[in-house]
This record gives sequence, C-alpha cells and structure tokens, in this order.
Amino acid sequence: MNNKKICTAHIISIGDEILSGHTVNTNSSYIASALYELGIFTKKIIAIADADNEIISELESSMKQTDMIFITGGLGPTNDDLTKNVLCRHFGFKLKFRPEVWDHIVAIFAKRNMVPDEINKEQAMFPDSEKVMLLHNSSGTAPGMHFNFDGKHIFVMPGVPNEMRSLMKEEILPYLKENFSDNLYYRDINTTDISESSLYSILSKNPEFPFGCAIAFLPQGYGVTVRIKNFGAADQRKRKVDSALKIIKSLVNEKIFTYDMVTPQHELVSILKKRHLRLSAAESCTGGLFMNNITNIPGSSEVFTEGFVTYSNDSKFAILNVNPSTLGIKGAVSEETVSEMLEGLLAETKADIVCAVSGIAGPDGGSEFKPVGTVFAGFSLREEKKKHIRKFFFTGDRISIKEKASNKLMIEMIRYLKKETT
Amino acid sequence: MNNKKICTAHIISIGDEILSGHTVNTNSSYIASALYELGIFTKKIIAIADADNEIISELESSMKQTDMIFITGGLGPTNDDLTKNVLCRHFGFKLKFRPEVWDHIVAIFAKRNMVPDEINKEQAMFPDSEKVMLLHNSSGTAPGMHFNFDGKHIFVMPGVPNEMRSLMKEEILPYLKENFSDNLYYRDINTTDISESSLYSILSKNPEFPFGCAIAFLPQGYGVTVRIKNFGAADQRKRKVDSALKIIKSLVNEKIFTYDMVTPQHELVSILKKRHLRLSAAESCTGGLFMNNITNIPGSSEVFTEGFVTYSNDSKFAILNVNPSTLGIKGAVSEETVSEMLEGLLAETKADIVCAVSGIAGPDGGSEFKPVGTVFAGFSLREEKKKHIRKFFFTGDRISIKEKASNKLMIEMIRYLKKETT
Repeated sequence: MNNKKICTAHIISIGDEILSGHTVNTNSSYIASALYELGIFTKKIIAIADADNEIISELESSMKQTDMIFITGGLGPTNDDLTKNVLCRHFGFKLKFRPEVWDHIVAIFAKRNMVPDEINKEQAMFPDSEKVMLLHNSSGTAPGMHFNFDGKHIFVMPGVPNEMRSLMKEEILPYLKENFSDNLYYRDINTTDISESSLYSILSKNPEFPFGCAIAFLPQGYGVTVRIKNFGAADQRKRKVDSALKIIKSLVNEKIFTYDMVTPQHELVSILKKRHLRLSAAESCTGGLFMNNITNIPGSSEVFTEGFVTYSNDSKFAILNVNPSTLGIKGAVSEETVSEMLEGLLAETKADIVCAVSGIAGPDGGSEFKPVGTVFAGFSLREEKKKHIRKFFFTGDRISIKEKASNKLMIEMIRYLKKETT
Repeated sequence: MNNKKICTAHIISIGDEILSGHTVNTNSSYIASALYELGIFTKKIIAIADADNEIISELESSMKQTDMIFITGGLGPTNDDLTKNVLCRHFGFKLKFRPEVWDHIVAIFAKRNMVPDEINKEQAMFPDSEKVMLLHNSSGTAPGMHFNFDGKHIFVMPGVPNEMRSLMKEEILPYLKENFSDNLYYRDINTTDISESSLYSILSKNPEFPFGCAIAFLPQGYGVTVRIKNFGAADQRKRKVDSALKIIKSLVNEKIFTYDMVTPQHELVSILKKRHLRLSAAESCTGGLFMNNITNIPGSSEVFTEGFVTYSNDSKFAILNVNPSTLGIKGAVSEETVSEMLEGLLAETKADIVCAVSGIAGPDGGSEFKPVGTVFAGFSLREEKKKHIRKFFFTGDRISIKEKASNKLMIEMIRYLKKETT
C-alpha cells in the first residue's frame, strides 16, 4: 500500500487484577513495543476496572484523542468479564452464536483434556455486523474483535498474556504492517558503568547536542540506554540518526556494550553462537537467574549445556571443589571463591567459557566490609587460562541486586568477547 | 487516629520508556497492591509521556475523580525529566536549593564511587512551601514530594523501581496507615487443575452464590484465584467473607492449594522451613527458573542448598548419571528420565527432598507424540523412597511454558507436603 497513514494509539487494559496490583500489566508493554517498532506511537496506557461506565467513558475519550485503541481483558466466560457485551451495546451491535467459534472452543478444551461448560457458549457469541471482524485466537477460547468505526480502529483481545500475544502476532500486526506506516527512525545505544547525569553532561557539552534529533535517556537495570529519535522527512531520518549515533559513539565509546533493543542475554547467546563457544555457569547469589535468562532465548541449548546453583558453602566445595579454607578465610563472597568456582567449572565441564557469581543479595547477610549488594562476578575462556573477575556494589532490594548482578556479568562477557574479535 | 477516611487513588506513570514498551510498568502494580492491602482502591492506572500538557491534563482530570494521586517518574536530572518543574509551575510553587538534599546526593554518589555532576544540583531544588513535604529517598538521589492541596494528596516518586519502593515503604505507607483506613475485607483461594469456566459453573450452581460477597475469578499462570470481597459494615465483613470461603472450600476443596496472596515459591519455602527439609533441584526445560523463583525468597538459603541445570543430554548423564540408553530410547522428555534425574539428585546431594523437570519449551523441538508444551515433572522425599511424577501439557510460548512448569512443580510439592501433614 502506498497511501500509508501516521497513527497514534491508546491501550486500555480492563480488569480488577491490574488495579489491585495482583497482575503486572505486561500486555501493555508488549503491545506498545510492537507498535513502536511499526512507528505507531502509544500516547496513553490506561488500566480500568471491569465496569460498564468506566469502559464506555475511556472508550469515548480515547476515540476523540487517538486513531487506534487496543483493549485487553474482560473476554472470559464469567460474570466479571464485561468487555464484549459493553462494547456491542455501546456501538449497537447484536450478538449471534457462531458455530465455527464454538467448534474451536471445543477443540481447545479437548487439547487440555477438558470439556467446555454451558457458560463457554457465551464465548461463541459474536457481533453480527460487517464493521466487526473476528480475530482468530489460536491459543485460547475467546476470539478477538476488530471494530472499524468512524475511521477509528478498535482491537479487542483477551487479557491472558499468551493469548493476547498470539492474536497480536497472527492477526493484528500483519494487518497493521500492511496498512499503516512508520514515521520514525530511531537507534538505541546501551551503555554501562556511567550514570545518567554523567552521560548527559558529556553529551550536552558538545556544541551540536542534540545533533538534530530527539535524545532520551532510559535508565536500565544495567546502565543507561541513549535513544536517538528522528521524526523528520523519510529520506533524512536515517541519515540524521546515524550521524548523531556516530558523534555519541565517539564521545562515550568505551561505555557502550550493545546497540538497539537487544537484551544482554540475546546478545550473549548470539555472540557465543557466532564464536561456537559452549557456556557453563555457577551461580550463588543470583540463584539461577543468569541461567534462566540465558535459557529464555530460543536456541540457547546450542551454546548453553549445563550449570550449577551452588547456594550453600558445602555445595561450593562438593560440586566445584572450592577449598573450604578459602571459604573460611576469604569468605564465599570474595574474588578467591569466584576464582575457584571458575576453576571448578573448567574441571567439571567441557565448556569453552565459564562464568561464576557470588554476592550478598540481602536483606540479611551484610557486614561493614561486605555490605548487602557486594558481588564478585567473573568469567574465563578455557583456551586463555586467564580469569576476569570484578567486584561490584549494587543498590536495591534482593531482586534488583540479583538482576543487576546477572546482567552485569553478561555485559562483562559481551564487552570482552566483542573487544577480542575487533 | 480515629477519624479515618475511605479513599480511592489514581496512579500516573510518566515516561516515554513505558509508552514505547521498553519498560514494564511494575511500579504501578507495586503501588496498587500496597494500597489494596490498606483498603485504598486504585480506580485508574495511567501512563503518559514526559510532556507538560499531558502531565497537567491528567493531573487536573484525576484531581476531580479521586482522593489520592501517586505519580512516578520524571524526577531524574536530565532534560527529559519534567515532573517536578511542571507540578511546581502548575501549583505556583517556587523551587529553592536545599543543602541537606545536596549533601545526600553527594553521599549517594560516593557510595557508588562516583562524584555528582553540576546538573545533579537540579535534583536538590525543592518547592518552597508548607504544602509540600519532602520524602527522603534512601536509595537514590531524587527526593520524593507529598503535596497536600485542595484536600487531595499527591505523592510524587522517582521512576527507578527500587527507589520508588523504598520511598513507599519508608515514607508513604507509614503515613497512609496512620491516617487512612481500610474499608474492605477479602480472602483469596488459589486453585489449580480446574478451568475458570468449570469453577464458575460449580460455584454459581450453588443457590447461595455469590454468598453475600463479591466474587472475582483471577486467572494465574498456575490456575485460577477466586477472590472473595466484602465492602460491608466493619463488624460484618470478615464474618461474611469467612462464611463464603467455607462454602467455596466445601465445593472445590481438592483443587485448592493455598490461600491469599502468596506465591507458590513463598509457600513452598515456608513449608520446607517448617518441616526442616532441605531441597535440591534438577532443571532441564525450565533452565534455572525454578531455582531463581525459590532464591527470590529471603531466607531461602535455609532450605535450598544447591541445584543443577542439566540442559544437554550429556550433562544429564555426566552430572546426574541418567542412563544414556534411557535418554536414547525414552528420550530426555520422559517419565523415565525425570525418574533417573531424581535418583541422581538423591545420590549426589544430601537433600531431604529433590525435584526435577524436563520438557519441551519450544518454539522448536516438538514432535507429533511430544508436542511443544509437553513436560514431565516430579519430586521425591528421601525417607519415602517413592517418586511422584506427572506429565503435563502446557500451552503458550517458551516463557509461559517455563513459568507454568516451574509453578506446577512447586504446587505439586505444596499439595503433597500439606496433605501429608494433615
């Protein structure tokens, strides 16, 4: 299509479980991120209750402000799932039983070795109008809806995350790609070991700042991402952003570890694949998070073979042969212990690169000399016979210390493996 | 205080990183959940851009609709952090340099072995009015603010999650507990192995449904939570909810594994502690997620000593002594392999209870007889010499299959250990 239009979006999540804090609204960030990649800008994300008047009031107000509305939640079979009925009443559509939807519901239940109840028939009721298209839900029983009304597009999806994702991937994103265009070019520069304020100082002191672009600083668990955006004419956007990126790179090169929206685990798995390196890990304070992040990447089994969570001192000795006197004198949280964990991994596995981490995630276990947040982490390439271990101090609670430690260890490996090859 | 007031809240998150989908809005669910526990109901959660007009427009509209407004984000030192200046301009407050805030900023930087930049001085500027209280930020440089204006309370916090959490815990929640009261009593019943529609059918067929309460069905990764709420008079709320809970328990008792907002990992760690059982785990398809969830619980080191991620077939043999012919004939995803993983754990560790999981998380690796989502998981108590292994079939993508497998394994152990003791 040639006549593509620039668009903005609102996302409305319906459900008491988000407002009560029981459920984190990951659906909205998934949708917003997928839209962003297409150059469709989310202007507002709203979560409201399963209540008629709230749904209608947000819908009406959003219809005035934006081109597209993405609604999730409230499509289940029970009495607190109102979305479909409220929307159809509002727009004046009647519901009709759709046998092909019912067949799909029966098939989905069969796959789970269950039989649908009478109340599931409610989910096979669908608006009887040309203005509403059925969106097939390959992962669940509730179909999605696409209203095309007054020039606005309203997409309605179930709130169950994997059902929402399959509707987005299989039905909505292909439609949007076909019919709506991007009006943005952007690149991300991911930095580490430098604060948001120092980054800003260095960049803003340059007389050309903001380099003809919009620059945003996005703090991450492992550093700060500098996002360079340009909304200008199609033939100039890329050139301007690329030139800004070049300048920023020259100013803070040694703090950069990756570009664009790639997680440390994605980057690390991809480098290990390229280099044909098999990885093995030993985790103490991170307790499996590092390996969990690695194994979230499809195909990680090519490079990740095994790992150990040696949580207790005894297990560090029993599994990795860490000397009990090292543990006794230097402590489990020390460069020496991490060094012996690496040696243990090299002896116990056939991995080409090994990594280990030990620290104090808290809330207890800190001391004056090793406060909560003290972490030693490092890695070693088998062929190099050299260990790279650093001491870190992370702030935050138990979960954020675990996250920062895992991410930092990945970033250290990424930086080293990249430097080595260039 | 005697004169406690019933309150509603809006949460406004400011920042492009949420709208671009780059950051998941976990801050809002943390705040909403903490408020819910106090009986303060979040009516709306909104995410908007770092833009003057958007901030003012949401603020004005929320001031009309709710008693309290919680704002996060936009308090950093850079040019895209507008919140403080916009609010102060809107309410007509002047900013003044506060030396004690600057001292705190210098101290926080020193802790991270860094020195603040000139632009950090911006963060030491604070509204000069009795209507604005400073909220001390023990984890970061940007202080929070508490506006008391036209009878409305506006709390402003940084967007960095651990800084927001420490402001909530140390400053805001104690204030709310002191001054505002609960008007709700609720209990949660967490069920598994039953669909939302079957649960609803069973419960709604009872003539007394909804048992004088409001009943909500909240789908979780591992089953469905039934929430029983009552907003009635203070002396009757608890009685009504407890009586509803008793009826629901009698109707679906064998599907219940825990009560109230407790995660499977919390419950499992707590049971293991009570029983003085040490746990060891071997993970294949979950890749460390199970152990990561366990070690997210403070004090889990008392019961969790070590574990293995045996991702490759070779490692299942090398570490846990799984017979290569079992792997060859039955496959890594089989009851027999999980059974030998359990035996390997019993032989290699001193744990009192061991658990193991092997499955196909996808997207690749599925076959006609073992499609993506097929998972075998089980556990064994050393003193029992008996193995409890089940086959599951989970839908969803790689990450949700990992989550469901890890949660289900925990729930199986919880149900068994609870049954055993009662």
